[in-house]
Amino acid sequence: MASLPPLTESLIPFLDPYLPRINPTAVLDKAETDDSLPFITLTFAQSIDSRISSSPGARTSISHLETKTMTHYLRSKHDAILIGIGTFLADDPILNCRFKINHDDSSHLIRPVIIDPTFKLGFYYEKSKLRQAFLESKGLPPIVLVRLSEIRSNPEIKSFCTLHKIMLLPIETEPASEFRWLKVFKELKKRHIKSIMVEGGASVINSLLLARDPSSGKSLINSLIITIGPVFLGKSGVEVSPCKELRLTDVSWWTGVQDSVICSHLK
Amino acid sequence: MASLPPLTESLIPFLDPYLPRINPTAVLDKAETDDSLPFITLTFAQSIDSRISSSPGARTSISHLETKTMTHYLRSKHDAILIGIGTFLADDPILNCRFKINHDDSSHLIRPVIIDPTFKLGFYYEKSKLRQAFLESKGLPPIVLVRLSEIRSNPEIKSFCTLHKIMLLPIETEPASEFRWLKVFKELKKRHIKSIMVEGGASVINSLLLARDPSSGKSLINSLIITIGPVFLGKSGVEVSPCKELRLTDVSWWTGVQDSVICSHLK
Ligand SMILES: NC(=O)c1ccc[n+]([C@@H]2O[C@H](COP(=O)([O-])OP(=O)(O)OC[C@H]3O[C@@H](n4cnc5c(N)ncnc54)[C@H](OP(=O)(O)O)[C@@H]3O)[C@@H](O)[C@H]2O)c1
Ligand SMILES: NC(=O)c1ccc[n+]([C@@H]2O[C@H](COP(=O)([O-])OP(=O)(O)OC[C@H]3O[C@@H](n4cnc5c(N)ncnc54)[C@H](OP(=O)(O)O)[C@@H]3O)[C@@H](O)[C@H]2O)c1
Repeated sequence: MASLPPLTESLIPFLDPYLPRINPTAVLDKAETDDSLPFITLTFAQSIDSRISSSPGARTSISHLETKTMTHYLRSKHDAILIGIGTFLADDPILNCRFKINHDDSSHLIRPVIIDPTFKLGFYYEKSKLRQAFLESKGLPPIVLVRLSEIRSNPEIKSFCTLHKIMLLPIETEPASEFRWLKVFKELKKRHIKSIMVEGGASVINSLLLARDPSSGKSLINSLIITIGPVFLGKSGVEVSPCKELRLTDVSWWTGVQDSVICSHLK
Repeated sequence: MASLPPLTESLIPFLDPYLPRINPTAVLDKAETDDSLPFITLTFAQSIDSRISSSPGARTSISHLETKTMTHYLRSKHDAILIGIGTFLADDPILNCRFKINHDDSSHLIRPVIIDPTFKLGFYYEKSKLRQAFLESKGLPPIVLVRLSEIRSNPEIKSFCTLHKIMLLPIETEPASEFRWLKVFKELKKRHIKSIMVEGGASVINSLLLARDPSSGKSLINSLIITIGPVFLGKSGVEVSPCKELRLTDVSWWTGVQDSVICSHLK
């Protein structure tokens, strides 16, 4: 694990309005009541032509090292980092936080969360960097969200998870085969996860961009942070584009050595 | 025609390195020899998800008024503005320059150029805003590039163009059905067009992004200027994404009230 370059100072005030608040008066706060939702930050790096990798499964460099440090800084502000199983299989990500909060050597421990309806993780976890990081005390084992019917029909899933200290979270999927994000986030909140940084991949992003709380009609995303790198990855790249039009609000831009970062809320 | 808000001052130094140079020692300059190419600026406005309109044929607002003024400022620096027939039919654009260069009322006269292999323009020109602007002395009639075989088989094209003071430019297309951009630009250069601002639409942009001078291997695009507006137009939008990966170089970003503008060269 290579060490990160220092965080570009100007990113701190730029990102601040879009970060989850740590509330000292937590008990009285509505955000802390049981059925409230965690704070959701959706963040990813894309090309000018809104590709997040050059082809399915290809690890692609899009953004400058300084925005990589930004990603780890953002992770230090969240309780969990969520990805889909597609990203786990394509990138073998470490999913820890390497940003040093204090000047000693300690980093924030962030909980990896993997959306994996059919538990594909089982075949790949043992050789993964994620597990390696846990064994070296550089990261936590993941929470894995699996379809309830899958767990019922395959008892090995439970024993595998127990063995590897993976927290298994069963989710019911009726009537559609997709998890509803509201349910996913409520389940995670019950496990004391108050803020989640969602990092991809494309299916997760495209569906979450459109997810709304049916009671308020509001987007489930509290902050959207996108890094745009100066490259066209081209038609065969993995694309972010939701099925419907979506206007952003409270927009701020930041420019680095080569990339631009947009922070915003969703209308 | 509504008047434009003033140009945001900071755009002038930002755009300057990416603009065509007006060379006083023109005669000696290689750029002025006969087989040299015009200076090509490719510019358009896109959503975060690299859509330039929300559906084929739908006029879509993507960028803030201040970047609209930027477009007219850029036009004031070029001899011609080029679009494909798809954009003419979808948007009924005026294609003139409304940026006032001097503080009197005069604007720069820019030549519209339309890529129209099968002369679809014939059916729509008479009622177009482009023609209206010409009749009101607010714009020039266009140069229209039409496939040679089309002109040969349809003699009315020539008389229509003569009647409307349209300059007809026949282009041979063998063996492919697409014009080669090198040929297009050389033909325009022969007509004393030394700088061209290419504004779209998607087919023009996607093919021009990949066009290279076979003798030098270099991109035919001298400057790329993209405005990114804070919106996702969604899957059914008209997309810009070339068929191959393309890295940008000499990148600068500018941020306005809501949009970001990237200027760059192509590797
Ligand atoms: N540039 C960046 O910032 C960035 C970040 C992350 C990833 N990436 C790239 O993104 C690509 C992977 O994207 P991807 O779309 O293939 O994978 P993904 O979004 O990570 O995972 C997709 C899978 O997750 C499950 N899933 C996602 N949402 C679900 C929901 N609401 N309910 C139930 N299951 C759900 C499904 O699994 P099942 O098929 O098993 O049902 C789905 O196939 C990779 O190339 C990776 O490099 C880029
Ligand atoms: N946001 C922006 O900045 C912006 C700017 C401009 C346009 N737009 C949008 O773009 C959309 C139009 O895009 P589009 O792709 O349909 O149209 P387009 O690129 O304007 O025109 C496409 C047509 O031009 C001809 N053409 C283009 N390149 C050619 C070549 N190399 N050789 C021969 N013919 C060539 C072809 O005509 P034939 O089919 O007759 O062969 C082709 O179908 C509209 O929705 C418009 O609003 C947005």
